[in-house]
Amino acid sequence: MNLSAKIGIIMGSQSDLNIMNDAAAVLQELDIAYEITVVSAHRTPDRLFDYAKTASARGLKVIIAGAGGAAHLPGMVASLTHLPVIGVPVKSSNSIDGWDSVLSILQMPNGIPVATVALNAAKNAGLLAAQILSTADESIAQRLIDYKTILAQKVEDSALQMKQNGYPSAY
Amino acid sequence: MNLSAKIGIIMGSQSDLNIMNDAAAVLQELDIAYEITVVSAHRTPDRLFDYAKTASARGLKVIIAGAGGAAHLPGMVASLTHLPVIGVPVKSSNSIDGWDSVLSILQMPNGIPVATVALNAAKNAGLLAAQILSTADESIAQRLIDYKTILAQKVEDSALQMKQNGYPSAY
Amino acid sequence: MNLSAKIGIIMGSQSDLNIMNDAAAVLQELDIAYEITVVSAHRTPDRLFDYAKTASARGLKVIIAGAGGAAHLPGMVASLTHLPVIGVPVKSSNSIDGWDSVLSILQMPNGIPVATVALNAAKNAGLLAAQILSTADESIAQRLIDYKTILAQKVEDSALQMKQNGYPSAY
Amino acid sequence: MNLSAKIGIIMGSQSDLNIMNDAAAVLQELDIAYEITVVSAHRTPDRLFDYAKTASARGLKVIIAGAGGAAHLPGMVASLTHLPVIGVPVKSSNSIDGWDSVLSILQMPNGIPVATVALNAAKNAGLLAAQILSTADESIAQRLIDYKTILAQKVEDSALQMKQNGYPSAY
Amino acid sequence: MNLSAKIGIIMGSQSDLNIMNDAAAVLQELDIAYEITVVSAHRTPDRLFDYAKTASARGLKVIIAGAGGAAHLPGMVASLTHLPVIGVPVKSSNSIDGWDSVLSILQMPNGIPVATVALNAAKNAGLLAAQILSTADESIAQRLIDYKTILAQKVEDSALQMKQNGYPSAY
Amino acid sequence: MNLSAKIGIIMGSQSDLNIMNDAAAVLQELDIAYEITVVSAHRTPDRLFDYAKTASARGLKVIIAGAGGAAHLPGMVASLTHLPVIGVPVKSSNSIDGWDSVLSILQMPNGIPVATVALNAAKNAGLLAAQILSTADESIAQRLIDYKTILAQKVEDSALQMKQNGYPSAY
Amino acid sequence: MNLSAKIGIIMGSQSDLNIMNDAAAVLQELDIAYEITVVSAHRTPDRLFDYAKTASARGLKVIIAGAGGAAHLPGMVASLTHLPVIGVPVKSSNSIDGWDSVLSILQMPNGIPVATVALNAAKNAGLLAAQILSTADESIAQRLIDYKTILAQKVEDSALQMKQNGYPSAY
Amino acid sequence: MNLSAKIGIIMGSQSDLNIMNDAAAVLQELDIAYEITVVSAHRTPDRLFDYAKTASARGLKVIIAGAGGAAHLPGMVASLTHLPVIGVPVKSSNSIDGWDSVLSILQMPNGIPVATVALNAAKNAGLLAAQILSTADESIAQRLIDYKTILAQKVEDSALQMKQNGYPSAY
Repeated sequence: MNLSAKIGIIMGSQSDLNIMNDAAAVLQELDIAYEITVVSAHRTPDRLFDYAKTASARGLKVIIAGAGGAAHLPGMVASLTHLPVIGVPVKSSNSIDGWDSVLSILQMPNGIPVATVALNAAKNAGLLAAQILSTADESIAQRLIDYKTILAQKVEDSALQMKQNGYPSAY
Repeated sequence: MNLSAKIGIIMGSQSDLNIMNDAAAVLQELDIAYEITVVSAHRTPDRLFDYAKTASARGLKVIIAGAGGAAHLPGMVASLTHLPVIGVPVKSSNSIDGWDSVLSILQMPNGIPVATVALNAAKNAGLLAAQILSTADESIAQRLIDYKTILAQKVEDSALQMKQNGYPSAY
Repeated sequence: MNLSAKIGIIMGSQSDLNIMNDAAAVLQELDIAYEITVVSAHRTPDRLFDYAKTASARGLKVIIAGAGGAAHLPGMVASLTHLPVIGVPVKSSNSIDGWDSVLSILQMPNGIPVATVALNAAKNAGLLAAQILSTADESIAQRLIDYKTILAQKVEDSALQMKQNGYPSAY
Repeated sequence: MNLSAKIGIIMGSQSDLNIMNDAAAVLQELDIAYEITVVSAHRTPDRLFDYAKTASARGLKVIIAGAGGAAHLPGMVASLTHLPVIGVPVKSSNSIDGWDSVLSILQMPNGIPVATVALNAAKNAGLLAAQILSTADESIAQRLIDYKTILAQKVEDSALQMKQNGYPSAY
Repeated sequence: MNLSAKIGIIMGSQSDLNIMNDAAAVLQELDIAYEITVVSAHRTPDRLFDYAKTASARGLKVIIAGAGGAAHLPGMVASLTHLPVIGVPVKSSNSIDGWDSVLSILQMPNGIPVATVALNAAKNAGLLAAQILSTADESIAQRLIDYKTILAQKVEDSALQMKQNGYPSAY
Repeated sequence: MNLSAKIGIIMGSQSDLNIMNDAAAVLQELDIAYEITVVSAHRTPDRLFDYAKTASARGLKVIIAGAGGAAHLPGMVASLTHLPVIGVPVKSSNSIDGWDSVLSILQMPNGIPVATVALNAAKNAGLLAAQILSTADESIAQRLIDYKTILAQKVEDSALQMKQNGYPSAY
Repeated sequence: MNLSAKIGIIMGSQSDLNIMNDAAAVLQELDIAYEITVVSAHRTPDRLFDYAKTASARGLKVIIAGAGGAAHLPGMVASLTHLPVIGVPVKSSNSIDGWDSVLSILQMPNGIPVATVALNAAKNAGLLAAQILSTADESIAQRLIDYKTILAQKVEDSALQMKQNGYPSAY
Repeated sequence: MNLSAKIGIIMGSQSDLNIMNDAAAVLQELDIAYEITVVSAHRTPDRLFDYAKTASARGLKVIIAGAGGAAHLPGMVASLTHLPVIGVPVKSSNSIDGWDSVLSILQMPNGIPVATVALNAAKNAGLLAAQILSTADESIAQRLIDYKTILAQKVEDSALQMKQNGYPSAY
């Protein structure tokens, strides 16, 4: 095991990896340790149970779970642990425009929340996990503040570049 | 245990009972033994696991599972047993017009089917369970054929009654 | 006729064959005999009537019907036989994102259920048909249990492969 | 039989009568003979077949069919007769906001049209049937022209009444 | 003018021609004279008014109107003539999945029906127009009956071909 | 005519008056003259044409048009005048949850914009009309600035009131 | 200020209080200090800016923001602070079935996550906030574990009660 | 600054430029000065505040704001200025078919209107801005009248061209 992993990233199928990698990438950028693997709610329910029930004891603080279609992974993990669970609706191939993933993850009943992010927004799931850790870690908080500064700077750069390209603007 | 129970009816919350009772009622009408209880995927995941994993050994042949919102109960039961699982999307109070329940139950991934019926259509779930048993039980098959005859007769009666009430019809 | 055929697979148009073949393939994999043909509710209503009314006498136990758009085939078959009918909503070319097929098949009135599977999920229709037969056939039940084991194993293999590819994971 | 009936109005269930009566009422207002009865595609498929196949020979020129949920009645009638069929999507109790009825009736495949009107718009179905007859009946055409004049007059009256009630308007 | 034209086909934009041509083609196949042109409700409202108001006097019996997005053409034509109007929702480039065209055409208020066909289903619009004419023209009726026979035959041929290609079927 | 009327408010049916009155009320509050009447695109197309074509000459600067279902009034007015047209989608009785009104008004083709506001948001239509006039009228601009101040003050008052009612807040 | 407040609850309008109170109630039940007030993104943008920018310095660790319709409050708060923001879509009166609130909160762009919970699910927002604090507070973690135990016990009690009421069940 | 700029065009991301350029192009065609730049509500909230609060003083009369997904830019600008704001929903890459952008912009609460145009309809936003200016500028009004004439002429040309290409038409 990656001993320092604070964030567990799981996905319902390896085919979700190209989406879920965005969560890993942003955590790496923020220098936060994570683990990442495949856990299918429907094909490996025992693996799901074991993963979720041991997550806290193994040192994980937040779980990011991505799945498509009738996406039960995030909600079932949330039912099995008291850790915060972030759900990433994945727009898989036979999905009905992503609505199935979104609603299956978002509309959890009272008592068992899942922190849902936008369709395919694994990067935001990673950032949200970092925000959660930052509530007790000043250093991560500072990295997030810096991250926001860079986001803003890129917009300012875009604006400047447009002006240089001849787009009229007084602002 | 109801020793002869062939059909297990479960629901995510006792508040679904007014809907799910329709499944029980039609099974009773067809003289098919059932059991009925509450199993919440999200609040009692262990109960869910145990229920689903022991279902076949306990003699159940079909499981009817009803749930609302992010309805994971039917799909998770299906992941834990090889028995056919019938899913009833329930339009619960904070549901988004029932779309969440329908899509959470219907859009199962390859490998793990759930036989989904219409929104709130627990009666049809009961009939479908009876149809499944009837594939190996001539007596149930006959009761279903009779049931269809009665359905048709009621329509004929409606038509006759309308005629008697003065609605013009040559048919 | 394929004398041992227990499962009848029909589709509204030959253009649905690339989808509906998935049902045939999984039945073949499970060594369950089937027949497969085209029956259009709208273009060949007489063929539909005849097919559905003779299905039980011809030895069929389950009918799988796939159709797109205003998909009336599964529901009309269900109205004409007491056999369980599995409906496969097909996302055809001028479909409105598949919603029309899904709702036309799923939302059957009380009395006439159709066991609906996910959009384009003909493989799951085949599996569901096998599950139905398995309620009275231990051998098929065993094959389905094995099938589930293989599904799980593939996920475990994926997880292992990711680890070998350098993805950090303690699980 | 109502010997002069040119328009056949049918509905999937007597519970649709409060909606479908609007078609009868407007035909009566336009002095066009009709017949009206219950024909359920799913509960009385034989009645459906017989009704549709004999419709033309019995003298009907247009069929108005209303149904809710997975509404197959209009489309199946259209598959069984060359007469024009007008479909009325009915928003029944367990309908998903009417979308199921609308899409089940509207999205017919190439070759088998159904002339669909708005949700619950049985009155418009009656008017459309009259318009169809009017293509070969000057007297009905004149009644429809008069009908339009009255519709317009009612709007003018509304406008006048508002003015008299003190709403400022120069128009 | 095409003196014998009984059907007027109009569309909101020349870019709809590839869709609306299907209406012309089927009318040609059924040997029914038509005229076809562009009339934009929003860009040429005067042309729309003139076209619709003179349609009956010019000998047209049915108008087929296709449009995309906020599709007002069919409904506005229907407001200006007592002729039956068939609306074809076109899925244009910036349409929201076709929902805008469908709802803009279908959901007409009481008093002003539009006979709506499926998304992009101009062929069905042509057939429906022929059905309307056939209510007073035995020869067209016969051609439509023949058309239906051919449709059915093609399905039977498909079924036969599948059998010859080795697909198991007793039917 | 109300000689000073700068804003014309029209609606497709007098039944929309309870909604559209909100536009009138806010204009009155801002001391801007308006006229208000019924103009139905579908029942009084001639009235629509005349109203829209004479609007500018009669001194109107902005037209607010509200309608439900297949709502063609705003778009058709926009096609007939160069004045800015504000569309109010009204959720009428047989509307499909308001989607029909929204999409019929919003999704106008290139060349003919309609400034669409939220479902039933006639008050915002009135405010938008005032904003348009304010681009050339400092006094109206000032009244709108004051209006915004009052809106903000009401929120501050709410916050204060909650605090006084015992809700904990440092803000 | 409530000096110990770790969670800030805000809502777009006092009319959301009956929903948002559920967040406060569950935090109280878990003995976690919060503050609660009204902040409107659209009516008090300055208050929004000030609230969000000072939140971290004032000691808040998590912000829960509820809003309806075009719900910009959660996303704008998230843009102004690095703290985790939980969004509660509120189904307000003129909402289009809640879809507007859900999508306005959920579909945030890359870089600025909002942890979205189900429609009207303020209780789950409160629980999620507690879960976030629990990642660094063993005592809260224990309370959440106890909370889950109680949830499960209530389901078991329901099941027992149904059995006592005569519902057949071996489970 | 472009001193004569009366219209400010902003977009949430430079990736929206290919859409938003249509607004600039039509303003240029109508000889109306504009400025155009990037302002992100979520990544540069301070830039948003400053832009919107200074817009009127800098001489802008109308602001056109385009954004995708959870599109808060138009609504937040509207909250910060009394100028009319035109919102362009952009169908960005991870949008759920554009519904998120449309609803986030359209469904503004009472008091803060946004004049919403169709999905991706930046050209119409430009025209609407011109219409607004034209309420106090006869010259722009004349250009808009000419613009409409050209639109109509193009349709007439299309119709003529079709006739010349052999499409039968008396109109």
